[in-house]
Amino acid sequence: MFQSAAKTLSVATTTAATLTRGTSFSIRRYCQKTPATLRVSEAVSGAKLGANVKVQGWVRSVRPQKANLFLHVNDGSSLQSLQVVASSELLTLGSAVEVTGTLRKSPRQRQPFELEADRIHVVGDCDPVDFPFKIKERHSLEYIRQFPHLRCRTNAFSSLLRIRSEATTAVHSYFKENGFVQIHTPVITSNDCEGAGELFQVEVKGEKFFSVPAFLTVSGQLHLEVMSGAFSRVYTFGPTFRAENSQSRRHLAEFYMVEAEVSFTQSLEDLTKVMEDMFRSATEHVLAHCAEDVDLFHKHVTPGHRVSPQGHFAIDILNQSSQKFAFPTDWGCDLQTEHEKHLVKHCGNIPVFVTDYPYDLKPFYARDNLDHPEHTAAAVDLLVPGVGELCGGSLREERLDLLKARLGEAGLEDTYSWYLDLRRFGSVPHGGFGMGFERFLQCILGVDNIKDVIAFPRFSHSCPL
Amino acid sequence: MFQSAAKTLSVATTTAATLTRGTSFSIRRYCQKTPATLRVSEAVSGAKLGANVKVQGWVRSVRPQKANLFLHVNDGSSLQSLQVVASSELLTLGSAVEVTGTLRKSPRQRQPFELEADRIHVVGDCDPVDFPFKIKERHSLEYIRQFPHLRCRTNAFSSLLRIRSEATTAVHSYFKENGFVQIHTPVITSNDCEGAGELFQVEVKGEKFFSVPAFLTVSGQLHLEVMSGAFSRVYTFGPTFRAENSQSRRHLAEFYMVEAEVSFTQSLEDLTKVMEDMFRSATEHVLAHCAEDVDLFHKHVTPGHRVSPQGHFAIDILNQSSQKFAFPTDWGCDLQTEHEKHLVKHCGNIPVFVTDYPYDLKPFYARDNLDHPEHTAAAVDLLVPGVGELCGGSLREERLDLLKARLGEAGLEDTYSWYLDLRRFGSVPHGGFGMGFERFLQCILGVDNIKDVIAFPRFSHSCPL
Repeated sequence: MFQSAAKTLSVATTTAATLTRGTSFSIRRYCQKTPATLRVSEAVSGAKLGANVKVQGWVRSVRPQKANLFLHVNDGSSLQSLQVVASSELLTLGSAVEVTGTLRKSPRQRQPFELEADRIHVVGDCDPVDFPFKIKERHSLEYIRQFPHLRCRTNAFSSLLRIRSEATTAVHSYFKENGFVQIHTPVITSNDCEGAGELFQVEVKGEKFFSVPAFLTVSGQLHLEVMSGAFSRVYTFGPTFRAENSQSRRHLAEFYMVEAEVSFTQSLEDLTKVMEDMFRSATEHVLAHCAEDVDLFHKHVTPGHRVSPQGHFAIDILNQSSQKFAFPTDWGCDLQTEHEKHLVKHCGNIPVFVTDYPYDLKPFYARDNLDHPEHTAAAVDLLVPGVGELCGGSLREERLDLLKARLGEAGLEDTYSWYLDLRRFGSVPHGGFGMGFERFLQCILGVDNIKDVIAFPRFSHSCPL
Repeated sequence: MFQSAAKTLSVATTTAATLTRGTSFSIRRYCQKTPATLRVSEAVSGAKLGANVKVQGWVRSVRPQKANLFLHVNDGSSLQSLQVVASSELLTLGSAVEVTGTLRKSPRQRQPFELEADRIHVVGDCDPVDFPFKIKERHSLEYIRQFPHLRCRTNAFSSLLRIRSEATTAVHSYFKENGFVQIHTPVITSNDCEGAGELFQVEVKGEKFFSVPAFLTVSGQLHLEVMSGAFSRVYTFGPTFRAENSQSRRHLAEFYMVEAEVSFTQSLEDLTKVMEDMFRSATEHVLAHCAEDVDLFHKHVTPGHRVSPQGHFAIDILNQSSQKFAFPTDWGCDLQTEHEKHLVKHCGNIPVFVTDYPYDLKPFYARDNLDHPEHTAAAVDLLVPGVGELCGGSLREERLDLLKARLGEAGLEDTYSWYLDLRRFGSVPHGGFGMGFERFLQCILGVDNIKDVIAFPRFSHSCPL
């Protein structure tokens, strides 16, 4: 119902060009009536059974058998491909096709419905010699990672992308249902959040674009804290950056982080409750909505791995292991990945909270527990099986005098005068945490390399496309 | 039910410190029983009427009257603040308070429920001299923009942030309900999408971090096109960047874009349908879920502005104006903002599609209509009242030979060999569009300056915080 205002006052149609392109051959009979177009997810669940339908997608497998050719056609709408039965004609893996035919119950065991093809139109062909994925081969995650522009065409990576999309929905749903306001915290920032190094600088050649040095954000926390002076529950979910010179299985230069900030906190438990609820809720959502895709990973990609939010939280396992912690570092040292994994394993491979870290190890914003002589900060990490640190959080120092003193010691009082303002005007006890989204996916799926759970991994010496 | 593994095996509590801080005074009687904590949005709708409750938030107004003090307390959960009736005590605008008392029907007209305070605890005070917002004053958007770390504490900007959060939900809901998979396209990229200038470079001091020049993305389109070789419907929604040296009301260095890509398209109408549906659906969602917040803008911030997705699409207005277009540029020239606004106004201030632009004005990926002598590309813009271009899209050139020839002419065949691969292996007719999310909000709310619809605006010579 919008108006089209064009020089020619008409909308250009490309139909003619489309239908005459490529190979098009009729099988059995040509159907005059326009068939309904179904997505593969609809067809495999038997929608329009017995009707003449059209399905569009890419050929994921080809199997000649006697007089027939069995194709699996997929359009990304589900892991399950639609089985198409055609007369024996040459069709290659990876081709794009448009199939018209009758949807019927399948006499074969592996799928309830199949499409008996009347007509297969090859929309775009695919040279099987040049195409890097081969028929009947199960390619490893390492192999497909070499083709960042094509790996979404494999079953494993298209499952991953559907899971990632659904997990994103799950995170947003959790926060929305719990009254959090979503804030788009900035990617470009003039603060470095923790005074830590490893920053990417943002520049325009030969220009002082922003007048001040500008960086890619390492965390949206400080910007969320701005908001927690007016909204008692806020969150952000977006890309964050580390210029870490590492090609390890654990690090990316660009990754996604979920961060939340809660005002009027009484203790760390106000945070750990949100962290636990969110983790549980998002995990349950993904397992419920992507059962087939998650199964593919657990059966074929990372065999042996299982996840269940129920099992993770079983109180009896927790109680049995609660006295067994052997913390293999001296007090005052930070936890390393090996220690984190050890702790998680020691607790029976369930998620574990570690709280109250040495004050001097934590950034300026962490709240002082004032518990001399130990002197800890009200900080918390959530460790999970296989991954180590999944979330890190803390109560924030809301007391102006304490915060001012600590920033003063570091010579940062002027830099963070705006942050001190937040404590000058209606300061409240508050705290927050961040969760590495890729690590969450690794934890659910048992995927070892972080590069395999993100669409376009960026890391040291690697930024194709 | 998570396990706490700490040096002391206990979670530090900050309760003692919290309750002794600040001024705390009892009014009438002190209540021993722990009162239920309500959010302001719950209290103003009369939840727990007659019960003893606790509300936490910030003082948004103070009005002494006879023996009583009337406060408005807000915690960001709704535009409406909770009216608190207390004995006359000194409380300042901007202070954070915790109020305990009885929720009762209000004898006053302006709100149905109010809280009769038993006890007001000042959690964090606020010096009225230093605080930039003053009691009983309505500050302009220009004024509050000077305080990026505090402006969320005004009614207008907290409304904006709630609307922005809800509009984000609306966009995701639309795509999810229509079977689109969300892709996190990368922020850091080695391609510049359109060969256009105005790129931010990403660097690490003294290091060739990525081995190749890396930039902040100007569009996720090419990465979405990768995905549209396996998923017939994909979208992305995230930050995009332009190093445009402009401080105009229309430009930001960092802004949000919604982009979608649809495979197996027949014509531009497959795109305009999605653009129209998304625009309508998101607008309706925001108007339905943020009625009060949107009203604030229409009544007080941008008086005179109204938006209604119904009105926009009225077929009779469209038909009446369909013959009146006077396109004040010569064929072959691009549309300028003034022309776009003129077109929209000419159509009766409703959204307008402009299609089939001169081929030579469009980037290499736009599909050639092969309509000599005009020679147009299958591109489309959606123009909306007050804003001009809201969306831009096109069918993409899926024919390998045509694409290869055009890239060859521009000397880009090697750079985009991965993009040509997408046409080599199972290419399909497809197209997509992008919508400027800030412009969408401007269109709904009638906000003139784009800096007023984003949490932390970044532009030429401005990157505070």
